[in-house]
Amino acid sequence: MTQPRQSERKISPIFLERWSARAFDETEVSESVLQDLFEAARWAPSAYNAQPWRFVYARRGTPYWKPFLDLLIPYNRDWAQHASALVFAFSERKFVAPGKTEAIETGFASYDTGAAVAFLALQASLSGLVAHIIAGFDGAAIVKKLEVPEGFKLESAIVIGRKGNPEKLPEALQAREFPGERRPLPEFSAEGVFRF
Amino acid sequence: MTQPRQSERKISPIFLERWSARAFDETEVSESVLQDLFEAARWAPSAYNAQPWRFVYARRGTPYWKPFLDLLIPYNRDWAQHASALVFAFSERKFVAPGKTEAIETGFASYDTGAAVAFLALQASLSGLVAHIIAGFDGAAIVKKLEVPEGFKLESAIVIGRKGNPEKLPEALQAREFPGERRPLPEFSAEGVFRF
Repeated sequence: MTQPRQSERKISPIFLERWSARAFDETEVSESVLQDLFEAARWAPSAYNAQPWRFVYARRGTPYWKPFLDLLIPYNRDWAQHASALVFAFSERKFVAPGKTEAIETGFASYDTGAAVAFLALQASLSGLVAHIIAGFDGAAIVKKLEVPEGFKLESAIVIGRKGNPEKLPEALQAREFPGERRPLPEFSAEGVFRF
Repeated sequence: MTQPRQSERKISPIFLERWSARAFDETEVSESVLQDLFEAARWAPSAYNAQPWRFVYARRGTPYWKPFLDLLIPYNRDWAQHASALVFAFSERKFVAPGKTEAIETGFASYDTGAAVAFLALQASLSGLVAHIIAGFDGAAIVKKLEVPEGFKLESAIVIGRKGNPEKLPEALQAREFPGERRPLPEFSAEGVFRF
């Protein structure tokens, strides 16, 4: 059994219970369950409320599944193939502010998309799923395959599914199948002075 | 009274209850309460578990408060001055991967910092606080004032406090003191094809 994370501080367990597992059980996921995850992302904050995030997804059991999986690097495809859905997250770089006619780069598109995916990942955990965000994909191939127009940036891939038996993972991955650690608070937060 | 947001989908109320209020009640916030918020941010996922987020903060009632407020643009300072804490969020751009000696740009520092701040904002809401993320600040002045070294990017400012009486806001802001709307799901999520 995986040991749950502990925290000495008063935070909601939702932040401790979410972690990026790789063992999935090959169940299919309904359109409706996935849309609940996007709905959580939908309510994320963003600069100028521009909501720059865009999601394109494939579900296990649909014709999109295999072609989407093929866009991951082999290392990630090996475990992601047992998941239930694969999402590519994009950000729209430009934005037309209210009352303006010209689109401008807000400079916050990646940051805001990260926030939206964080909401998605938490809702996944609350829905009994895992949303494992990965950076290992063939970005150029994804942009080409999906005919992504200029003005959008591929931000991440998100592997979604139900936790499976870790013993079915390749041995090298079994050793990594536990919640990751984090640096202590004083290493990333400080009062009044920048001391990092 | 502010009308709560509604959702037709099955998501946790935490995503609907969080919104970016501007009316604050001028209470002070303890170091411990703030650290609970950073603790939530701490558990956010990041590429290579690099945890690129860095936070520097000032609390009302400390010598840091006024100098930090002065780094906001006047429009935001007008309402943020009634809050309890002000945080500047930075990202570290480079990262030394395990087993490597040279630091590389992961390309995910902004995205990951957005995720961490999203966790922080949710925990704030769960703690009965508001964490209002803003982009209106004098970035060059902040970097200079805090002597931020090269290799770090200022991502956002976060105004934290307890909700106050909206009627005390300037009239122009009173009209904006309600939870923002969002675009419908089909405008940012699609199965199999990029159609945005």
